[in-house]
Amino acid sequence: MRVFDIKKPNSAIAAALKEKIDNLTKPKGSLGMLEELAYRVGLIQQTLSPQLNNPNHILFGADHGIVDEGVSFSPKEVTWQQMGHFLKGGAGISFLCKQHNFKLNVVDSGVDFDFPSDCGIVDCKIRKGTRNFKYEAAITMEELEKAIDCGAMMVDRVYAQGCNVVCFGEMGVGNTSPSSMWMSYLGGVPLKECVGAGSGMVGKNLQHKLDVLMDSARNYQSTEGTFFKKYIGEEKETGGGFVSNGNKDYALEIMRWFGGYEMLMAVGGMLRAAELNMVILIDGFIMTNCLLAAKELDENVVEYAIFGHCGDESGHKRVLDILGCMPLISLGLRLGEGSGAICAYPIVVSAVNMINQMDSFKGASVTKYF
Amino acid sequence: MRVFDIKKPNSAIAAALKEKIDNLTKPKGSLGMLEELAYRVGLIQQTLSPQLNNPNHILFGADHGIVDEGVSFSPKEVTWQQMGHFLKGGAGISFLCKQHNFKLNVVDSGVDFDFPSDCGIVDCKIRKGTRNFKYEAAITMEELEKAIDCGAMMVDRVYAQGCNVVCFGEMGVGNTSPSSMWMSYLGGVPLKECVGAGSGMVGKNLQHKLDVLMDSARNYQSTEGTFFKKYIGEEKETGGGFVSNGNKDYALEIMRWFGGYEMLMAVGGMLRAAELNMVILIDGFIMTNCLLAAKELDENVVEYAIFGHCGDESGHKRVLDILGCMPLISLGLRLGEGSGAICAYPIVVSAVNMINQMDSFKGASVTKYF
Repeated sequence: MRVFDIKKPNSAIAAALKEKIDNLTKPKGSLGMLEELAYRVGLIQQTLSPQLNNPNHILFGADHGIVDEGVSFSPKEVTWQQMGHFLKGGAGISFLCKQHNFKLNVVDSGVDFDFPSDCGIVDCKIRKGTRNFKYEAAITMEELEKAIDCGAMMVDRVYAQGCNVVCFGEMGVGNTSPSSMWMSYLGGVPLKECVGAGSGMVGKNLQHKLDVLMDSARNYQSTEGTFFKKYIGEEKETGGGFVSNGNKDYALEIMRWFGGYEMLMAVGGMLRAAELNMVILIDGFIMTNCLLAAKELDENVVEYAIFGHCGDESGHKRVLDILGCMPLISLGLRLGEGSGAICAYPIVVSAVNMINQMDSFKGASVTKYF
Repeated sequence: MRVFDIKKPNSAIAAALKEKIDNLTKPKGSLGMLEELAYRVGLIQQTLSPQLNNPNHILFGADHGIVDEGVSFSPKEVTWQQMGHFLKGGAGISFLCKQHNFKLNVVDSGVDFDFPSDCGIVDCKIRKGTRNFKYEAAITMEELEKAIDCGAMMVDRVYAQGCNVVCFGEMGVGNTSPSSMWMSYLGGVPLKECVGAGSGMVGKNLQHKLDVLMDSARNYQSTEGTFFKKYIGEEKETGGGFVSNGNKDYALEIMRWFGGYEMLMAVGGMLRAAELNMVILIDGFIMTNCLLAAKELDENVVEYAIFGHCGDESGHKRVLDILGCMPLISLGLRLGEGSGAICAYPIVVSAVNMINQMDSFKGASVTKYF
């Protein structure tokens, strides 16, 4: 298993950063979140003049065995169809990447479709979709390690092209279900509070989705109970008893049993990006849960993360709270693909422009204006 | 008094707009606020393919007589100094306009300073600051009419250059005080709920600001009581009893008694922009109250307004609620100058890109991708 060596940004520069921001020609604190962002990006890059270079969006796609249980309205075919759509440029993420100058990298992490080799999709296919985690582990440990490596490799690739800010997105019909399982087990939240509408489920259909996930949790705990600490009473019933205890093996088991290939690649990508001191843009419910998982493997990863968008998916706000993070915008997006984070990106650019382009009280001499 | 003829956008196109947005290749509604914005801009422009052309920011600056009462921490000189700062390019609004390709127009509406004639500031100076509304009307009716005309003229100027989206900002030490008075009288909100920190006042200083404004309200009502309907009891004490009754003369009296020249020019600009079917970006507390005032003169103006940012100023959320509007972002900015609205602008661009660039289910044939 690959080990990442993520350093907490050196805080020696913090005071100078704060002083520079406070000395810009504005009432102290009056640019709110822009000041906070400029500080964080400066800390990540260890400079008083941060730059955002060659932004890249890495969009991992994969299919999910749990979809056989009817947890999503969208048919599985939508995954591969959308992958083609991203390439062609007419999808939601396409116009957003174009608007904000993100290079879009579309990665086949495990889609149940044979893409032509020259179509422009990066081939990291591990398997044609995960296994059905209601009955067995979705992913083997060997596959998990490979997925983490692939995610890291994608980041190496964009880093080599001079990129220092990376966004992750996903496409995978049914992937709010594995995300809810990760959130419940890794965040210690009762499962029913982790399950949301996903592709648009409400009422009876939403109850069915929750039932499937509860059954999956019960089956898992009865077969794998010896590996995990014993759950008791209501905690066991709701599948929400596991909280970070510093044991990475626990986290890896949850990640592989209930995971998705695209999600694991995002985890690997986030860890590698943090290791390379890159700014990481975090999108909605699924990517936030990937960061939650990445944090189990190295808690310093969150120091590099900027949260773009708080979506409508039930539980997203809750997992943001667990991570202690505030998203930049909240526009009711629930498309996925990384759309919320890319939408929020110009605010990060504004923060960097602020610290680089505004006059400071020291430098500005107002009497010179006229 | 100039009369504006603002038409409610023709709703005949509404169904076609909704159909186009619903047929984009995404789950219906999954792009949340972007869908709402695309619909609104399409309605304003009466087209299924809206465009945002030559965005302009018009920043009105003026001084305020009420500052003599100690309602602001910033000395009056900051107003003219900042005007120079905007021109030079090192201010908060400068980097934001540059980032989002807004042409910045700096207008002297009534600054207490003699600017050189060739400095780049548009000269619309009505007077070197308003009178002190604690003791007398801040503005004469003749000045009010001139200010409204100047604001409209500035919009005519940018419209002639092909601009169809305009943002308004302000610079004026002390102008949260007149804004609070407008909000209280035009919105029917008790004064104490309209008064906030402004330049950073808290505790005793904030209480002093409220006391000054309460005294101003009492003095006004005792001298001008015959003009207005009688207030009784607590309503009278708090200066919050006036609610829109469709009488424009009432509104104009409040606007001139407690107003600012920069605020009236913004009102005139908003009304003229709506008359020209332009998209209007509304910034924070002060500009939102200018829209509240503009609405008293022609309620259709709100159909053209997009709210950028909900700031920290106490009462801003309240006046947004009165107008029934939801701001796009909330980043804790309290700089003024129009910074919040410009910061939010890329989201409006995203909405327009969405409706123009995304494939539709009708046009897209997924089988063609591979």
